[in-house]
Amino acid sequence: MAEAEVFPFHYANEGDVRVDVGKLHDLGVRALVAAGVPDEHARMTADVLLMSDLRGIESHGFARFVDFYVDRAHDNLLNVHPNVQIVAEAPATATIDGDGGLGFVPATIGMKLAIEKARDAGVGMVSVRNSTHYGPCSPYALMALDAGMIGIAMTTGGNNVAPPGAAQRVHGLNAMSFVAPCRDPQPAFCLDMATSVVAAGKIEIARRRGKPIPEGWAIDLDGSPITDPERFYEVLGAILPLGGDVLHGVWKGFGLTLMVDVLAGVLAGGKGSSELPRRAANHFCAAIRIDAFTDHETFYDQMESMMLSLRTAPRLPGAGPLTFPGEPEAAKEANYRRLGIPYHPSVLAGLRDMCGRLGIEYGLE
Amino acid sequence: MAEAEVFPFHYANEGDVRVDVGKLHDLGVRALVAAGVPDEHARMTADVLLMSDLRGIESHGFARFVDFYVDRAHDNLLNVHPNVQIVAEAPATATIDGDGGLGFVPATIGMKLAIEKARDAGVGMVSVRNSTHYGPCSPYALMALDAGMIGIAMTTGGNNVAPPGAAQRVHGLNAMSFVAPCRDPQPAFCLDMATSVVAAGKIEIARRRGKPIPEGWAIDLDGSPITDPERFYEVLGAILPLGGDVLHGVWKGFGLTLMVDVLAGVLAGGKGSSELPRRAANHFCAAIRIDAFTDHETFYDQMESMMLSLRTAPRLPGAGPLTFPGEPEAAKEANYRRLGIPYHPSVLAGLRDMCGRLGIEYGLE
Repeated sequence: MAEAEVFPFHYANEGDVRVDVGKLHDLGVRALVAAGVPDEHARMTADVLLMSDLRGIESHGFARFVDFYVDRAHDNLLNVHPNVQIVAEAPATATIDGDGGLGFVPATIGMKLAIEKARDAGVGMVSVRNSTHYGPCSPYALMALDAGMIGIAMTTGGNNVAPPGAAQRVHGLNAMSFVAPCRDPQPAFCLDMATSVVAAGKIEIARRRGKPIPEGWAIDLDGSPITDPERFYEVLGAILPLGGDVLHGVWKGFGLTLMVDVLAGVLAGGKGSSELPRRAANHFCAAIRIDAFTDHETFYDQMESMMLSLRTAPRLPGAGPLTFPGEPEAAKEANYRRLGIPYHPSVLAGLRDMCGRLGIEYGLE
Repeated sequence: MAEAEVFPFHYANEGDVRVDVGKLHDLGVRALVAAGVPDEHARMTADVLLMSDLRGIESHGFARFVDFYVDRAHDNLLNVHPNVQIVAEAPATATIDGDGGLGFVPATIGMKLAIEKARDAGVGMVSVRNSTHYGPCSPYALMALDAGMIGIAMTTGGNNVAPPGAAQRVHGLNAMSFVAPCRDPQPAFCLDMATSVVAAGKIEIARRRGKPIPEGWAIDLDGSPITDPERFYEVLGAILPLGGDVLHGVWKGFGLTLMVDVLAGVLAGGKGSSELPRRAANHFCAAIRIDAFTDHETFYDQMESMMLSLRTAPRLPGAGPLTFPGEPEAAKEANYRRLGIPYHPSVLAGLRDMCGRLGIEYGLE
């Protein structure tokens, strides 16, 4: 399947400007520090946002940097000096309280702790409460790869979704990522998905490009389909859970959403997404040590063999070869690391403007 | 939302005969023992099949008992004396080899082991290879409730699904269940879903009742939609992953399918569903000890509070009150335990006929 089909609104970056990865990370750290964030927390944040853009998850990276993180830190709308602490612990598990700071911090600490626990126990699992928006899930799940482990990350957030039978925004888009290593140099299997039909970022992108959205993504206040992205923002329309309607599995999407709410919020003693204020979030991290179950070579052999059996199955005319979650993203990462990450000029203008306000050097172009 | 809408083909049991739960379990054990299965293994099997029918998962219970299990055991198409063993172990994890026997056995052993490990470690996780079809996932996940834990169960199986861009049956319907306790006497949250748009059993039921199936469930060999269930069996049509098409999240359904393949098969050193022969399966079990993360009362409070916020959100006209996964099933279980489980007379005729062939007493009616 062509990449353009896999990511319907994702490509066509005519006019984009390529930015050097190192310079961008450096700017991210400097801006957050200027906004009052401790250096170590600023680094964790820049790491994740950079990885988001490197993987092509453009809706969750530096495009949101100013509004979501820098301005909120600067205006003390989030706790810039949070006391992130482990509030409960067992040999393979922990609960972390994020103290209302940047979500990147307790989630990075949580994922690293899960990996450490998996070294001894075989699996590590951490639930994080009292946090805020932390970007996409896959950068956290991908942290397990360096340890040769399977990584799982979940987060609540994006309270734009209507449960079955409703047309109001009630609960989160609640996302999850599952990452499993393949034999080097094959890219890792990397699923990163909202539990809704579509992530809100896709509707933003359609609006920016003046394109209609397909029926089945979002509904108006009377439950009828929205196809004009402007209408979605005008009436505060609701996104549908994955599955969309009763006959096509909406109870599955809704159920997965609640599974994320339970593992990421309720299990930590926190709230589900339907009760969280805007930008608040809870997270879940897990790492699984493969050689606690089977040896790495066998695991890689079986991954390869499974993927080969799927790839070599007959394709429909025009469908192109089968790709796996993580493959297009790995290709982008390789390209962007080499040539720089492409940004729409408006994103860079926003960063330049931010630098002016913070009184720091821009230095990207 | 009315139950009839939640389970479109599930109700309308005119002419069904109610069967006593104890008698049914007893018959299940006697029949399997007569087919050569050890008593303990027969009990594990009857436990799960009974729970399947009690929860209304009629496609996975005693309706399949003769064909799927008794006849195959009797004809030595599965290993009736498997050497089920733990082949790898860490403090919180284990790998079990099912030795080609009835799937109920290694999965029950695996789930109980996960629960035991969670008592010390906080979480327990077991991957099971070399197994066979084991019914639905929720009976295993529900085993965690007795220990006050969260339960997760996954299985490969049902190789009827086409990956994106294909129209052939290539990989499994790969199912998963997630169970979280609520404060007594509230029923547990219990998600039990195939990672395809629909489970194959729903197409069987439509065929039996002479009803069309909706577009978006299954495709013909050229990729066009199938709406006549007869056609699905005639051409060996393929079911679609959850999401159905590219614009509505088919990559998410496909990704979840592969997540199950990795955790349930590959992690144990076994094969993914796309390489397994018919009726072979691999499983995954996990148990999470809630009070390793937060105290039980806080957890129950937050579950209640979350569900209340979702229930009290505005509903669309005619939608009825919101139900949660597990609620309709718990209502059925209570009703069926009291009044007996309703079966179509053809299912009972099949069991009676089986008894004749095995030379055992029927005793249900």
